[in-house]
Amino acid sequence: MTRIAVCAPSTPITRDDAERVLALAAAEFPGAEIVIHDQCFATAGHFAGSDEVRTAALVECANDPSFDAVWFARGGYGACRIAEDALAAFHHGAQAKTFLGYSDAGYLLGGIYRGRMGKAVHGPMLADIRRPGGEDAVRRALGFLSGGRDGLEPSLAGERHPVVAFNLTTLAMLGGTRLMPGLAGHVVMVEEVSEYLYAVDRLFFHATAHLNGIAGLRLGRVSDVPENDRPFGADAVEIARHWCDRHSIAFLGEADIGHDAANRIVPFG
Amino acid sequence: MTRIAVCAPSTPITRDDAERVLALAAAEFPGAEIVIHDQCFATAGHFAGSDEVRTAALVECANDPSFDAVWFARGGYGACRIAEDALAAFHHGAQAKTFLGYSDAGYLLGGIYRGRMGKAVHGPMLADIRRPGGEDAVRRALGFLSGGRDGLEPSLAGERHPVVAFNLTTLAMLGGTRLMPGLAGHVVMVEEVSEYLYAVDRLFFHATAHLNGIAGLRLGRVSDVPENDRPFGADAVEIARHWCDRHSIAFLGEADIGHDAANRIVPFG
Repeated sequence: MTRIAVCAPSTPITRDDAERVLALAAAEFPGAEIVIHDQCFATAGHFAGSDEVRTAALVECANDPSFDAVWFARGGYGACRIAEDALAAFHHGAQAKTFLGYSDAGYLLGGIYRGRMGKAVHGPMLADIRRPGGEDAVRRALGFLSGGRDGLEPSLAGERHPVVAFNLTTLAMLGGTRLMPGLAGHVVMVEEVSEYLYAVDRLFFHATAHLNGIAGLRLGRVSDVPENDRPFGADAVEIARHWCDRHSIAFLGEADIGHDAANRIVPFG
Repeated sequence: MTRIAVCAPSTPITRDDAERVLALAAAEFPGAEIVIHDQCFATAGHFAGSDEVRTAALVECANDPSFDAVWFARGGYGACRIAEDALAAFHHGAQAKTFLGYSDAGYLLGGIYRGRMGKAVHGPMLADIRRPGGEDAVRRALGFLSGGRDGLEPSLAGERHPVVAFNLTTLAMLGGTRLMPGLAGHVVMVEEVSEYLYAVDRLFFHATAHLNGIAGLRLGRVSDVPENDRPFGADAVEIARHWCDRHSIAFLGEADIGHDAANRIVPFG
């Protein structure tokens, strides 16, 4: 039996989200037990409960030795507000755990990886059940947490460097903070959603300045780009190449990650 | 006679913008001569000409000893792409000059201040003529460039620390780059426009992590905040106080700067 704790360090999910995932898991993953912390349904302004409430739930899930994994419920924004305090309260119970999420959960993945406090993994979250094809995203996450390796990002099979994956905004905001892991020698995958291309360019300006010595960069999907009042003049791949060139970073091509149901799994390291 | 060169390191202006400002200057500032570089009207995708074209115009204006000031035409996005190369080509002709702008021009102001290459000043740009009340913004800029001091941000009068002012996004993106000046001991003013409050919070998370040792922070206007699907739960002042508290930064109150015609002038230093 794989025991999976779900908490929401950023924004809340609905009871309906939870019921749908629990039903899917009961039908298809009889070896997985999912325990959804009540904090996932709390609300406080933008967040799934106050900073204190979210911190307490995350620490409780991370330190409970009866769980094998902590699955982040949803992104949105808010994990960066609690990450430092929560990680400081992690103890040995967190060490052997897998922590799975992406997007805003990247602040936690970064800090966990930096602190070697458990296994940080970039992949689908519970709330992805809402997306078109979201059941497949949830199956991929539960399959991975149950020991399957089918959902791994394909380039990992041939990769000899350690790998990390982040939402580009999250990675840009991590740079220079106490949550930013050292990424020298790593392949860094990034993806983005709902940002103008000029903002993607600006994020690359910033993020690449913090990626000295990486082994290379792969670009995931840059999706739902809003239409600006004029064309930017370069697409996302050209933007990535431009900034990699500026910083002598090897551009390694595409990565099969993104804010969508096809988002593949990237274990850090 | 004060000779002012105008170039556009980010996005283009229109001939109409230029004519309106030249007419205002001719009528009200007979001691100022404004020379608008043709590059201000160039377009290449998002930008006022390619990176090479914008770099060349900025370097030409900065190094020409017959000009007293370089006035940035407009923000929008793009200065970060050319700032390092342009500043590397500045010579002694740039040393005695004033460089005036804000918003996206902050990348240049930051690099100029870091490199002690001239006098960086945060204040209205030519394209502010488009705003409601924009003539007053242009008058404030031309008055300052002509030697007047009426347009200065009011708190400067009682301030004993050196001061800088930035758009919050620009400051966040500067952190950790080769354009970021050392700001220990400085009062740092920030303003923002058209960002969700969750994004403002995220920018403060990041920017304050790069502001170790500053003398304090002042908050300019945070304007045109889009309405999100739910209230954030804190206003901009509460957000600023939260992150200042996290980093033991003194919150000094408001600053009279912003993306509007009332934007007051802040000479760096």
